[in-house]
Amino acid sequence: MTKLKKPRKIKYNLKNERLRGQSMDSEIVKQQKAQVGREAVNYIHDGMVIGIGSGSTMWYLVEELGKRVKAGLNIIGVPTSNFTKKHAEKLGIPIKDIDDVDHIDLTIDGADQIDANYQGIKGGGASHLMEKIVATNSTKNMWIVDETKMVPTLNYPVPLEVIPYGSKQLEKKLKKMGLNPRLRYKDNGEFVRTDSNNYIIDLYLPHINNPTKLAEQLDTMVGIVEHGLFLDIVNTIIVQHPDGPQIIEAR
Amino acid sequence: MTKLKKPRKIKYNLKNERLRGQSMDSEIVKQQKAQVGREAVNYIHDGMVIGIGSGSTMWYLVEELGKRVKAGLNIIGVPTSNFTKKHAEKLGIPIKDIDDVDHIDLTIDGADQIDANYQGIKGGGASHLMEKIVATNSTKNMWIVDETKMVPTLNYPVPLEVIPYGSKQLEKKLKKMGLNPRLRYKDNGEFVRTDSNNYIIDLYLPHINNPTKLAEQLDTMVGIVEHGLFLDIVNTIIVQHPDGPQIIEAR
Repeated sequence: MTKLKKPRKIKYNLKNERLRGQSMDSEIVKQQKAQVGREAVNYIHDGMVIGIGSGSTMWYLVEELGKRVKAGLNIIGVPTSNFTKKHAEKLGIPIKDIDDVDHIDLTIDGADQIDANYQGIKGGGASHLMEKIVATNSTKNMWIVDETKMVPTLNYPVPLEVIPYGSKQLEKKLKKMGLNPRLRYKDNGEFVRTDSNNYIIDLYLPHINNPTKLAEQLDTMVGIVEHGLFLDIVNTIIVQHPDGPQIIEAR
Repeated sequence: MTKLKKPRKIKYNLKNERLRGQSMDSEIVKQQKAQVGREAVNYIHDGMVIGIGSGSTMWYLVEELGKRVKAGLNIIGVPTSNFTKKHAEKLGIPIKDIDDVDHIDLTIDGADQIDANYQGIKGGGASHLMEKIVATNSTKNMWIVDETKMVPTLNYPVPLEVIPYGSKQLEKKLKKMGLNPRLRYKDNGEFVRTDSNNYIIDLYLPHINNPTKLAEQLDTMVGIVEHGLFLDIVNTIIVQHPDGPQIIEAR
């Protein structure tokens, strides 16, 4: 078994909470995540343009991808975050900006939660805008997650990237609509800022029975740049179970 | 007749092309715009919170409003641009941020074009995002325009504020949809940047028969922060004609 680098040794700025969290994974969970990462890399073939997401399982995928590139695999990576970009570049994976490629064949990313219809929520790390831009510009999308992310009905907080100007008025409106909004703060009391310098409002909903209807409501609201509902997007899901990865062909 | 200040004497940074344009207005047009400004100010009453837009006719309204405030009118202004904010403050109009007021009673702004159903396009000055945030947080909206802005069917370029990341891919998609997009550049060849540091893509459409359908299409597209279609928003329109202002109660 290949020895795994300890993620806590990474020196990049860990803006992403999910990435900070990974150093607390047990050795067994690390091995499971690495196994899922290797499984996902099998979908990557010579000549492909690959969208590369972020998250703790994605870290292992990028490590594995780096090895394959060193062994001769010829791909181009389009990262969804600065963190992943630096990680991939360090491993010698050729990186291009989304606007410098003709198309993206396959994007592999994590997800915060996936329901029985394979609709997902992303954005716990405040980067769902860039992730959605990459995802919606990809021919195919794959999510790699651990089994706790698979639920019958979505009930994870839905993140909204919102324009700071008027954000308190927006929060009031969302409250009136019964969507239980909370502006996301950092530990030091400042607002969380996205890569585009916007705020995040999380909607704390006990269960989202109709994510399509909720997405339609949010799409038309002024001041919301993008919501974290990723609907009808994922094609393949690789779920990490204690007894090995499960592959789901969603659509 | 009150002597009008020449707008070219304003020392603020004139980011807004429509404002730069006003210095070229003839003396007669200036007088007409001032008349419309005075007409609009009659809708402003003691104790109101007023959204104050920008544009060449708005400049005269702000001047008139400044006089009324000096004469004892008690209002609070919520500006939609930095330009208007400075102009209003200079005249002693009390100004608050949109997130520091409980509500906005009436917003008065310009428009680039208004169709027979009183649907409008705004954003020629690249500030339709803030303008729409203020407009959709207002109980009533008034637009003041000259008669050339009134058309049977909208055919003015529809501005989209877009996230720079992935904007070329977005432009390609819009082109495939037949929406004739063009990224907006400054004279020096750089991209126009909005107050939120985003780009502008203008859609050059020969006629927009169904603005609602177009808005729905644009609302769901990832990477578009806000489009310049202002639908079902305006309540009162004051149109400047050579023979005096016309008042339209739209909805």
